[in-house]
Amino acid sequence: MQPLVSIIMGSTSDMPVVGKAADFLEKMEIPFELLALSAHRTPREVEEFATTAATRGIKVIIAAAGMAAALPGVIAALTDLPVIGVPISSTLDGKDALLSIVQMPPGIPVATVGIDGAMNAAVLATRILALSDPSIATRYGTWRSSLADKIVNANNRLAQIDTYSFKTN
Amino acid sequence: MQPLVSIIMGSTSDMPVVGKAADFLEKMEIPFELLALSAHRTPREVEEFATTAATRGIKVIIAAAGMAAALPGVIAALTDLPVIGVPISSTLDGKDALLSIVQMPPGIPVATVGIDGAMNAAVLATRILALSDPSIATRYGTWRSSLADKIVNANNRLAQIDTYSFKTN
Amino acid sequence: MQPLVSIIMGSTSDMPVVGKAADFLEKMEIPFELLALSAHRTPREVEEFATTAATRGIKVIIAAAGMAAALPGVIAALTDLPVIGVPISSTLDGKDALLSIVQMPPGIPVATVGIDGAMNAAVLATRILALSDPSIATRYGTWRSSLADKIVNANNRLAQIDTYSFKTN
Amino acid sequence: MQPLVSIIMGSTSDMPVVGKAADFLEKMEIPFELLALSAHRTPREVEEFATTAATRGIKVIIAAAGMAAALPGVIAALTDLPVIGVPISSTLDGKDALLSIVQMPPGIPVATVGIDGAMNAAVLATRILALSDPSIATRYGTWRSSLADKIVNANNRLAQIDTYSFKTN
Amino acid sequence: MQPLVSIIMGSTSDMPVVGKAADFLEKMEIPFELLALSAHRTPREVEEFATTAATRGIKVIIAAAGMAAALPGVIAALTDLPVIGVPISSTLDGKDALLSIVQMPPGIPVATVGIDGAMNAAVLATRILALSDPSIATRYGTWRSSLADKIVNANNRLAQIDTYSFKTN
Amino acid sequence: MQPLVSIIMGSTSDMPVVGKAADFLEKMEIPFELLALSAHRTPREVEEFATTAATRGIKVIIAAAGMAAALPGVIAALTDLPVIGVPISSTLDGKDALLSIVQMPPGIPVATVGIDGAMNAAVLATRILALSDPSIATRYGTWRSSLADKIVNANNRLAQIDTYSFKTN
Amino acid sequence: MQPLVSIIMGSTSDMPVVGKAADFLEKMEIPFELLALSAHRTPREVEEFATTAATRGIKVIIAAAGMAAALPGVIAALTDLPVIGVPISSTLDGKDALLSIVQMPPGIPVATVGIDGAMNAAVLATRILALSDPSIATRYGTWRSSLADKIVNANNRLAQIDTYSFKTN
Amino acid sequence: MQPLVSIIMGSTSDMPVVGKAADFLEKMEIPFELLALSAHRTPREVEEFATTAATRGIKVIIAAAGMAAALPGVIAALTDLPVIGVPISSTLDGKDALLSIVQMPPGIPVATVGIDGAMNAAVLATRILALSDPSIATRYGTWRSSLADKIVNANNRLAQIDTYSFKTN
Repeated sequence: MQPLVSIIMGSTSDMPVVGKAADFLEKMEIPFELLALSAHRTPREVEEFATTAATRGIKVIIAAAGMAAALPGVIAALTDLPVIGVPISSTLDGKDALLSIVQMPPGIPVATVGIDGAMNAAVLATRILALSDPSIATRYGTWRSSLADKIVNANNRLAQIDTYSFKTN
Repeated sequence: MQPLVSIIMGSTSDMPVVGKAADFLEKMEIPFELLALSAHRTPREVEEFATTAATRGIKVIIAAAGMAAALPGVIAALTDLPVIGVPISSTLDGKDALLSIVQMPPGIPVATVGIDGAMNAAVLATRILALSDPSIATRYGTWRSSLADKIVNANNRLAQIDTYSFKTN
Repeated sequence: MQPLVSIIMGSTSDMPVVGKAADFLEKMEIPFELLALSAHRTPREVEEFATTAATRGIKVIIAAAGMAAALPGVIAALTDLPVIGVPISSTLDGKDALLSIVQMPPGIPVATVGIDGAMNAAVLATRILALSDPSIATRYGTWRSSLADKIVNANNRLAQIDTYSFKTN
Repeated sequence: MQPLVSIIMGSTSDMPVVGKAADFLEKMEIPFELLALSAHRTPREVEEFATTAATRGIKVIIAAAGMAAALPGVIAALTDLPVIGVPISSTLDGKDALLSIVQMPPGIPVATVGIDGAMNAAVLATRILALSDPSIATRYGTWRSSLADKIVNANNRLAQIDTYSFKTN
Repeated sequence: MQPLVSIIMGSTSDMPVVGKAADFLEKMEIPFELLALSAHRTPREVEEFATTAATRGIKVIIAAAGMAAALPGVIAALTDLPVIGVPISSTLDGKDALLSIVQMPPGIPVATVGIDGAMNAAVLATRILALSDPSIATRYGTWRSSLADKIVNANNRLAQIDTYSFKTN
Repeated sequence: MQPLVSIIMGSTSDMPVVGKAADFLEKMEIPFELLALSAHRTPREVEEFATTAATRGIKVIIAAAGMAAALPGVIAALTDLPVIGVPISSTLDGKDALLSIVQMPPGIPVATVGIDGAMNAAVLATRILALSDPSIATRYGTWRSSLADKIVNANNRLAQIDTYSFKTN
Repeated sequence: MQPLVSIIMGSTSDMPVVGKAADFLEKMEIPFELLALSAHRTPREVEEFATTAATRGIKVIIAAAGMAAALPGVIAALTDLPVIGVPISSTLDGKDALLSIVQMPPGIPVATVGIDGAMNAAVLATRILALSDPSIATRYGTWRSSLADKIVNANNRLAQIDTYSFKTN
Repeated sequence: MQPLVSIIMGSTSDMPVVGKAADFLEKMEIPFELLALSAHRTPREVEEFATTAATRGIKVIIAAAGMAAALPGVIAALTDLPVIGVPISSTLDGKDALLSIVQMPPGIPVATVGIDGAMNAAVLATRILALSDPSIATRYGTWRSSLADKIVNANNRLAQIDTYSFKTN
């Protein structure tokens, strides 16, 4: 099946974080591919990837990187597709990666999510794809309402404990 | 003409920054609307806006806010549309707004751009809309190539000055 | 017994921190309720909660949240009650939550306590309630003097060790 | 008229910021006093003030200070009244004052508002006083609804400009 | 033996750090006392301590505290003795304590050492006392030269390994 | 008259800040010398200065520097006198200078004052010298009490305005 | 004359900072070229430049960029020449650019100088070239000694003022 | 064999980080020496080292240090050789060391690499030496291409897993 989303990580050591993006896309039944590419160690492969992604049918690119995280910006510079950047924490709590990804110059945006926020990158990709694909929109809507349910259920359990009245009445 | 993009600002004092998003969308001939709404001062209007945006035909929401910038996240919580957040600098160089916007919990992403990066928010919205609208894609491609030309031209002017050889030969 | 304080947490995973607020209110014999509500995952429940809290007899709201911690501010926007915000540390040592909670726009304050400072939130609520409830004021005063005693006692133990003179005389 | 709120500033040079708290309390017709006291330069006057405030009828203390802003915490240590702290920016954008005020040890909270957020300190004091004074509650409610109106009006003006359709239709 | 240095800690939990100051003073044979006092929990004991330290023969005060570390500054405000401040790390890597201690207003300095730098506080106290006590100066000088020796010895051991030539010749 | 304090600045451009230290020492009638020396541009002069300061009768060294402010630490490494460091703000609000000065390794302390806190460096030097010079102690005590008076006077002026009652009674 | 150093700036608006590198190289009579290239706006020109620099005789590359400053790292990824990175301040005091440049992954270093430190980039390039070019080494040595002279002269002027003795003798 | 590179560490406890520089230089067959020297504890040994390094045949100096990391700058002040600085993390995630090393004054640069980036320091030294030593250039080129191969191989393994299609087709 033709992938719609490319998930790119700067290093395979980012897999534990990046895997959450893959998990969510699977849940949404959105085909994706998973690649390790480094702006600094495999610059030519990055260029090859970025300049051909659109013609291969990719719609959204998720790029995760740590430290001086140039990968998302460099890809965004070489494609017209929306690029979602995921700052990976390692040194400095990921603040270096966050600033390296989000502070792009005028004209070349990267849609940045929170530090280690790979799942949210996948949710954002899903929202974008849902704009023109009603079946994805439906699956996303179903999942969405389950989010609130979890908290409501947690709350019901809390209510049954009724901590205070139990102890002080 | 039916707007495709909503640009929301937390305060009308954000207009000088937010105006750059409007300018870019005009250049791309993408219809948009411009609204002032505050997560903290007009929470009910925000809810009304966010829950009806999709049915009014809006495809992408750009939300700009400063300080404890809850607006983009609160909107993202009430719609399934992609939401782009623009941190506005005021105190603390905008670092408070950046963190308040980008560090969203799992499940509710905000596509964050750089501090005061309203133009980039519009470029990102354009890339998203271009996925399913070839005429936007074409206009965006034309503009895109002009970006590189500017630097190439600037370089040519630098080359003519030829600073060093002039002074030392 | 009618609760006077609502303790709201953004996620049940915040319970270990938030529990300290509950413990202190119990010690002060102040009835409270404990709820899990998320500004981003259950926005409608938050609105329902915030707009009805005062009429249900709640006097003070304690809201704890991490990361892009919109919860306290969003509640403060929907009620006239005093709202106390507790930044929860997770990423970035809780600095993101601190700034997201404390940097509110003019007109909608959140009374912010230190990072993971849930006990202090409860102490602050107690001080507020004590203004119009003499029995709470009395219980608080009793507890208060015990604080200083602990340090004085610790000091007495230190004095008995008399580290230096023991070793050098 | 007996003051209900004390506004304390660490230095008279903080008056331009602190004045906003005074302005708001006047608008709410809440009697207040305005004092300059420094935890570091007039420690004995601070102690005298803090230990007698409650018996003089003060209900809430607002304390503003910059840099190593010990004033709010020191006052909170000497009174049982709720103390609201306002970090004043000078060096380091006020981040030093924010951390010096908010990061209080367990047992002695300071209700911290945003950097230079003196008006919000007054709003918070008003919310606290409104709990037991219906006339203050009424005046506050009236003012509160005017906040949202301002944004709604600003929005109406924006709507009339109708930026996009004007230029592209 | 009459103590010349007071070591004050905000909480007995700071003992592991503060103990390094005591160890160094013992090594220098400088009599000292060790007290737990909190600017926020035992303000009156702090005042009693600070206003009588000089008349009790104390020459230098070392005060260690974490978070909103008001202790060193409050003591400096109540005595004319030199006060050395030690920021204790807990939350935020001790950056909150560092700023709370070092950023004192004009007129009331605290001689701040590095985060958790209790030993250096004792070395600084020793340098100050050595100005008017030749026997302390002598003991300090002896210790001082041993510092450099340690590195010189470490270096000699490294030289014997001769890592590179061993492997590549 | 033989100087007791050396004030060293890394660059003559630091004179506007450093001048405040000189002003205070003059007020205290403490003889001092003022020198420009750079750890990075005149390392040999720094060594010459630091290794001879004590024998020339200097008791305390104040060293001010910005950015990678090595000067105070390098001097402290070459003398046994107490060294007071003043971080000068230039880039990064002086945070680079603060960390470069305060975070000294075990054994070589620098008594750090606040950013641009040259006056406080002089006050600290005065407190140290007063330990063994009663006439300095007397002059310092006189000045000290004038500090509190200024705030008390400012307060009296505030009281006469009596802002609130004037407007609302 | 064949350039030995390439000075690359991300935007011609960086010229005021970058010009200091050019000035220094001229003073050292080191031929250089000056180019505007952007990792994000002209990625292909950057690749062309970086992959051919060595064969054109370039020995050292200086790359200056602000915000998400990918330029120096991307060039370093495409050449084996030493690359010196200059973080340009714009937003966030240049801290974003500093982290984006210095925090490179293992294998691809950028020799980073201070924020806006373009002159130091040129000095570093000079030191590198001097390793294999004795005439550059000589010119650099001559300039070097003039640095210390400036401070020594400034000091002589300070000594003549003799601030303290003038006023108090 | 005559060393070309000196690796200096501020403390032997930095060996685990600094060892990566030694490992890389060995791989490149570049002779080096390894020394422990401290700007603050052995200042005279540092001066002796720095002023004689060039005449001993050293071409590049790598200096690693933590906290108030003065070592690289002090060495750079005493030699004309290129000096590479490695910030070592300990407190504050190494941000103190980074700023203390990189923010050098005009005229005395330190080529700074990332936090704990000792391997990159060695790679940078290799690039500098390769400018005038073709055999080093060759060995570096060979190693360089292996970097990209590692990622390409990792990618091939990822491709074989083919996560998505496996699960959803």
